[in-house]
Amino acid sequence: MFGNYLKKVRTLNPLVHNITNYVTVNDCANLLIASGASPIMADALEEMENIVSISQSLNINLGTLNERTVASMLQAGRSSNQKHHPIILDPVGVGASSYRTNTANHLLEQLSFSVIRGNLSEIKALALSTASTKGVDANENDSITNNNLDSILAFAQSFSKQTGAVIAITGAIDVVVDAKKAFVIRNGHAMMSKISGTGCMLSALIAAYVGANPEQTLQSCAAAVCAMGICGERAYARLQPNEGNLTYKTRIFDEMFHLTPEILEKGASYEIR
Amino acid sequence: MFGNYLKKVRTLNPLVHNITNYVTVNDCANLLIASGASPIMADALEEMENIVSISQSLNINLGTLNERTVASMLQAGRSSNQKHHPIILDPVGVGASSYRTNTANHLLEQLSFSVIRGNLSEIKALALSTASTKGVDANENDSITNNNLDSILAFAQSFSKQTGAVIAITGAIDVVVDAKKAFVIRNGHAMMSKISGTGCMLSALIAAYVGANPEQTLQSCAAAVCAMGICGERAYARLQPNEGNLTYKTRIFDEMFHLTPEILEKGASYEIR
Amino acid sequence: MFGNYLKKVRTLNPLVHNITNYVTVNDCANLLIASGASPIMADALEEMENIVSISQSLNINLGTLNERTVASMLQAGRSSNQKHHPIILDPVGVGASSYRTNTANHLLEQLSFSVIRGNLSEIKALALSTASTKGVDANENDSITNNNLDSILAFAQSFSKQTGAVIAITGAIDVVVDAKKAFVIRNGHAMMSKISGTGCMLSALIAAYVGANPEQTLQSCAAAVCAMGICGERAYARLQPNEGNLTYKTRIFDEMFHLTPEILEKGASYEIR
Repeated sequence: MFGNYLKKVRTLNPLVHNITNYVTVNDCANLLIASGASPIMADALEEMENIVSISQSLNINLGTLNERTVASMLQAGRSSNQKHHPIILDPVGVGASSYRTNTANHLLEQLSFSVIRGNLSEIKALALSTASTKGVDANENDSITNNNLDSILAFAQSFSKQTGAVIAITGAIDVVVDAKKAFVIRNGHAMMSKISGTGCMLSALIAAYVGANPEQTLQSCAAAVCAMGICGERAYARLQPNEGNLTYKTRIFDEMFHLTPEILEKGASYEIR
Repeated sequence: MFGNYLKKVRTLNPLVHNITNYVTVNDCANLLIASGASPIMADALEEMENIVSISQSLNINLGTLNERTVASMLQAGRSSNQKHHPIILDPVGVGASSYRTNTANHLLEQLSFSVIRGNLSEIKALALSTASTKGVDANENDSITNNNLDSILAFAQSFSKQTGAVIAITGAIDVVVDAKKAFVIRNGHAMMSKISGTGCMLSALIAAYVGANPEQTLQSCAAAVCAMGICGERAYARLQPNEGNLTYKTRIFDEMFHLTPEILEKGASYEIR
Repeated sequence: MFGNYLKKVRTLNPLVHNITNYVTVNDCANLLIASGASPIMADALEEMENIVSISQSLNINLGTLNERTVASMLQAGRSSNQKHHPIILDPVGVGASSYRTNTANHLLEQLSFSVIRGNLSEIKALALSTASTKGVDANENDSITNNNLDSILAFAQSFSKQTGAVIAITGAIDVVVDAKKAFVIRNGHAMMSKISGTGCMLSALIAAYVGANPEQTLQSCAAAVCAMGICGERAYARLQPNEGNLTYKTRIFDEMFHLTPEILEKGASYEIR
């Protein structure tokens, strides 16, 4: 099943419109290409309608939001909703400032999202408006473990019901849920947290998978999460003892570039609840 | 001949002023250094005149244009024209939005460019104001082949006459023309299209070559196109089977860093028409 | 001694708030992670107070300053001063435009900095308001040599007295001084100047070291300078003949990721004056 979503990305080559931060934007562009999609980064208000009209999905990332780009996010989001293009929200650092939290809440009120992806601290901050983050990283107490998995699934599904979006909470264990169904995913490697932007890249990748498979939002989102995790595992297996986080990042791109439907099918480690 | 243009870059170490996008800006900076030039990225309106006065050329790239940076492009362009510094225009994604197309046309009206470089979709959108792009990539129908080469050369030379600029259209085959003379270049590798920003990097490189060789705009621009293509070929030859687009990018920088006038002379594959 | 400052970074994992340029911002983020710190890049005026309140230090970098971000620098700086959080100033390209010079001087008037780090051209431009820079690189005449070392130390200490900040001037030889004491550091490799952003990365690293060791500003700043230099040396030793500046950069990250207190202690090459 998951292999087919990847095939669709490679054959349809969806154009993913990204309004994202300037920290990890180059990685998002190159990862989209490696996955088989095409990136376009554009955030001028004047061109949002045009860019949306040629794109298959929209990836909104709050990493380095400002007044100018938030206006563009709203405009592009409205156009995307009108055209029934999927929108992915990555609420980077929500909870770290009231500006981020308020902006994210305003976007949630104004727009209809297909997927919301973040770490547990971010999703808590968004859903509960009470959370403690450590900047853009999850608070140490906000990790998904086998012990709290049930309650986190219930929380995520409740937030999914409220927003109508697929909720993807990523960490040591990943959960991808809609109101009825849940994927619990155990791919990935701890060292992925030592790279700036693995979350941003994953959100862009989800936008590619969902853009190419708009009728299977939940499943294709889960496939993207598995794909990223598998590339993280395979890249780690090739890492030499004296290599660090930037080399590791490059290797993850190597793996994404060469990822096949077969590798994805075979490597995906998940259970459905 | 081409080797001498590279020698000039390495001995004169031109300072290239870039007003460019935030997606590939780091690659442009490091590629300029690898080539022997020095980069400066500055886009505040308040400092355009000062920065132009210490630079040898100006590289204007529309990748993530906005109201603020377009004003700076105009100001820097006017100062550069007054000082007779070469300006390179990279009309990224022109045709994808009317904002891009209108901005590029306004820049063309207000400024005198030494070189305009883009893919065929972009240059068509700019010259004909009718084109279909796929975001920042060329439309699949817009490829330069041996079959349409003559008509594309005629089109490019007509646009060169109209603008007074050298026109560089890059793709599987590259053409670099002024009103009288044309270079048809067959360097490069298809995998270069799998890296975000090879076009942006090439435009920056052209700014370095033309900045160091201002009396030979056409020839030094063609040399830069060959240099980039040769590095793409040599980097590909070193690529291992499990390596992907980010590793390939790094290897292109390796090759640019070690490119010699001899390698450039020997590897340049072009005919003059 | 220096080893302990690194230990503190790895155990306290300070959150470093960066208001920096879009050229090298990804490198700053990944280098901070490699060193053991956590990065947050945020420059919206609306969130400066919140972000400062969760951070341990602030890194202000003028690389691609503009009206919007300068306002945020001032706001974040004032909040940091109120909370007695260390602020690092990297006056990139000061001297290249009066806008940069005036902005830097205004920041110096309004804020109290813990460390100011730049190349000799930048620090001269800042201290003397008369300097000739070559864009963001030091003017060739502005190198620190054994011959002019005494006068540069005197100049730096005088500027330290004036500003109350530790002054770090980096180049072939590095000097790190406060009003009373001076470190002369001879780590590093000439090829580090062939990478865009080694200075920016070092300033971010200083923010991590000083953020984790706020009572030892001078010493921990000197330790960060040694750490960066040692990683440059070790990365160069591993560089293959056909590898260039982007591969070299990746290797520096490898070394920073694996740097231990022991390697830092043993490799640090400095004298105290």
